[in-house]
Amino acid sequence: MGKIRQQVKINVDLGEGYGNFKCGPDDELLPLIDHANVACGFHAGDPLIMQETVRSCKKAGIAIGAHPGLPDIQGFGRREIKMSPEELTAMVRYQVGALKGFLDAEGVELHHVKPHGVLYGMMYRDIEICRAVYSGVPSGIRVFGLAGTFHEQVAKELGLPFTAELYGDVKYNKDKTLVIDRKKKPWTKEESKKHIRSQVENSSVTAVTGEEIELPIGGNEVSLCCHSDSPGAIDIVKAAREIVDQFNASL
Amino acid sequence: MGKIRQQVKINVDLGEGYGNFKCGPDDELLPLIDHANVACGFHAGDPLIMQETVRSCKKAGIAIGAHPGLPDIQGFGRREIKMSPEELTAMVRYQVGALKGFLDAEGVELHHVKPHGVLYGMMYRDIEICRAVYSGVPSGIRVFGLAGTFHEQVAKELGLPFTAELYGDVKYNKDKTLVIDRKKKPWTKEESKKHIRSQVENSSVTAVTGEEIELPIGGNEVSLCCHSDSPGAIDIVKAAREIVDQFNASL
Amino acid sequence: MGKIRQQVKINVDLGEGYGNFKCGPDDELLPLIDHANVACGFHAGDPLIMQETVRSCKKAGIAIGAHPGLPDIQGFGRREIKMSPEELTAMVRYQVGALKGFLDAEGVELHHVKPHGVLYGMMYRDIEICRAVYSGVPSGIRVFGLAGTFHEQVAKELGLPFTAELYGDVKYNKDKTLVIDRKKKPWTKEESKKHIRSQVENSSVTAVTGEEIELPIGGNEVSLCCHSDSPGAIDIVKAAREIVDQFNASL
Amino acid sequence: MGKIRQQVKINVDLGEGYGNFKCGPDDELLPLIDHANVACGFHAGDPLIMQETVRSCKKAGIAIGAHPGLPDIQGFGRREIKMSPEELTAMVRYQVGALKGFLDAEGVELHHVKPHGVLYGMMYRDIEICRAVYSGVPSGIRVFGLAGTFHEQVAKELGLPFTAELYGDVKYNKDKTLVIDRKKKPWTKEESKKHIRSQVENSSVTAVTGEEIELPIGGNEVSLCCHSDSPGAIDIVKAAREIVDQFNASL
Repeated sequence: MGKIRQQVKINVDLGEGYGNFKCGPDDELLPLIDHANVACGFHAGDPLIMQETVRSCKKAGIAIGAHPGLPDIQGFGRREIKMSPEELTAMVRYQVGALKGFLDAEGVELHHVKPHGVLYGMMYRDIEICRAVYSGVPSGIRVFGLAGTFHEQVAKELGLPFTAELYGDVKYNKDKTLVIDRKKKPWTKEESKKHIRSQVENSSVTAVTGEEIELPIGGNEVSLCCHSDSPGAIDIVKAAREIVDQFNASL
Repeated sequence: MGKIRQQVKINVDLGEGYGNFKCGPDDELLPLIDHANVACGFHAGDPLIMQETVRSCKKAGIAIGAHPGLPDIQGFGRREIKMSPEELTAMVRYQVGALKGFLDAEGVELHHVKPHGVLYGMMYRDIEICRAVYSGVPSGIRVFGLAGTFHEQVAKELGLPFTAELYGDVKYNKDKTLVIDRKKKPWTKEESKKHIRSQVENSSVTAVTGEEIELPIGGNEVSLCCHSDSPGAIDIVKAAREIVDQFNASL
Repeated sequence: MGKIRQQVKINVDLGEGYGNFKCGPDDELLPLIDHANVACGFHAGDPLIMQETVRSCKKAGIAIGAHPGLPDIQGFGRREIKMSPEELTAMVRYQVGALKGFLDAEGVELHHVKPHGVLYGMMYRDIEICRAVYSGVPSGIRVFGLAGTFHEQVAKELGLPFTAELYGDVKYNKDKTLVIDRKKKPWTKEESKKHIRSQVENSSVTAVTGEEIELPIGGNEVSLCCHSDSPGAIDIVKAAREIVDQFNASL
Repeated sequence: MGKIRQQVKINVDLGEGYGNFKCGPDDELLPLIDHANVACGFHAGDPLIMQETVRSCKKAGIAIGAHPGLPDIQGFGRREIKMSPEELTAMVRYQVGALKGFLDAEGVELHHVKPHGVLYGMMYRDIEICRAVYSGVPSGIRVFGLAGTFHEQVAKELGLPFTAELYGDVKYNKDKTLVIDRKKKPWTKEESKKHIRSQVENSSVTAVTGEEIELPIGGNEVSLCCHSDSPGAIDIVKAAREIVDQFNASL
């Protein structure tokens, strides 16, 4: 527990459009972030968007991770689907491999894997799902997740490097898990700044039910997640960048 | 032109089921073939089927190729879709990468790439489509195609090793291209034997319109393709194996 | 409770192929059944298959029902997906409407609606899901379901005529619900005959855990369901036809 | 030929989002238009969006038409797919039926059918495709199309009432067909006003290649189409409304 003593990074989900459908303001976000989680075509993204997103990230010098999701474009990976462990592992292997196709073509390394949406939540609630998903991650590749949950526990079991995430635009439940909505609600600037600042500076946050909770970052690397499809995404990420840069300079 | 002077191999499309839907008798075909073209989830195949097919091929010691197709499970990749060159390249990169996800997990090399169905035909009819598709193949990876068509020409342009295909269960047009039907028609045993034998032994074949045509194999490696979804697939492949083994022994 | 005192009918799911993928032996089953549940394109079926199935049923004089399922061809509607009540209602309205498109073109009435696969099971376990699904059924249209469960209760709430189903090729849990597997296991002829006979003649059945359970048919119409994708489907349906005809003659 | 002598109406494609993906500003457009073409889930739209769009149109008193497209969400129905005539007919029947599911539930009549995107173009270039598509339209239902093309000819052959369309935000080729792009390019306000005014007031328009062409409206009903996914859609539709209202008042 206690305060974070490492440099904090910022990660954002990118490439979450589909065909003609746009999602977030990817181009405006690129200069503000460190890590991109690139959608792999199951909950969003398609081959052309993945190609373009990988090229933009490479040009902007951003570390690229795979962002595998449940097979459900219509539900944006936010409708729970019951799949067998074998299916989950295969589905992750497929999506990460597909992204690697573009990374290989551009000569860029895969930096990390971060499961998307409700799959992320299913994993911290069910250790078998967590094991199945992380079993699809290539050996030695870093995973992003919630510290103190099955995410961290299983990553360590499987020998995968682990980055603890903070959440710039998602509220927390009292039990340190996230409140995942299918459609995002807007935040005021002040709300989001306060939400980010307390996490980064004190590794604690106010739960939706009002309690102040401590986030068990431990000695892990830390990356603060913001979503490109949140209303006001650019303002939130700008605020996050400022708070994080200040904090990092203070270390 | 002239007779084939190399060992002839046999390739078959495998893993072309989808979810609960079965396609060919993959298990019975495995002991009879040299090269598998594994569906990558766009015209057929899904992550679980790909995982299982890669494992079965590895166990059987069969060289594994990617079999990317148009994004159309319902049409089994046999309905022409007009896509931009950028989309075609990205789509191939995606599918080949996805298959590599399973190959990497099993420690097996990608042997070749062979485009599926109507995409294969679109490529020998339109050099831009051919260039776009082969541009999605990882550098140095072998491609399978029709000798004497854009397939061979573009492979050489791009420096990709090329294997000339013969077709055990598909008829030829007079211009040496293939007659591709959305649903396969049955062959008699004698028909298919004659069809295979004349290709392997004389690199010539009778076109659907009756002419005897020479197949321009040149100095390329040769692989005879049979389809796992043809009626009577097992008998056709058994006959092919026998004819090919006899021929190879005679070299 | 007590013995069935009405004519028993037989219903089978038809049109559950997809594109080139075949499912059951529909043509052989048509002469053996009374009611068809026609897949509507979400868990199986596509427009062409629906067109052909509706025409075949019309020709064979079989009453046609809609068989809406979860939006998941790959999982054949057998993977649970969490959808909102509004989505469920809309999804059923969509699928039933789509089938009616073909019925209208052929001048045939919609006879009933029967939800497919895991959706059917979700409905008898969760009254909100049951209400959402049946709310998508056009007013006055008959629904097929399990007597004594939310199926029957909600149908009555909403004023929809109700047909109680027996299951020729699915096992029962002790609580009178069904054991739904993603892939069906084979039955011996004797097993399936015994399973059908006890339901039709005594409205009771042996649960998977060995108990003899009574099926609360009440005064409802009765239809015995067999699946076209079960191994040995034709034999099972032939046996069912014989048992049902004997029973009906005995009334 | 000659000037239009009927009241001109305005139609817009609505409900072209998909899941969480938004498309046009439907709510702002509703008060400005007469006819809505509602996407039916193949090129865009999903059951929930269709339900909501039908309700909004009903509330706004707008006539509702079905807007069937090619089965391709990723390509937004703007990538040509080769389908058999039987498939095309079945696909239209399916989509129109699905929309009718929602209309029936709301007690609203189906006003018309207008094929979407590249399918619309394929139909005026190929009479067999046109016949196949219009054969899927319920008998007696009005179709929207380009006067003087196969659209009009086939509608008359099949006895379907026909509405001639003008295009507020799409350019014309010299041969009176449309220039269909996968992604729309922006218009200046002046350009679009001039484009609309000349069509409405003189039934003529300047082709992309500079020629002034006459549009053969004949004695048909007329509806001016604008697209909700065009950049600046609201301004274009407002301008169209003003020009059309002026023209109608002048008759």
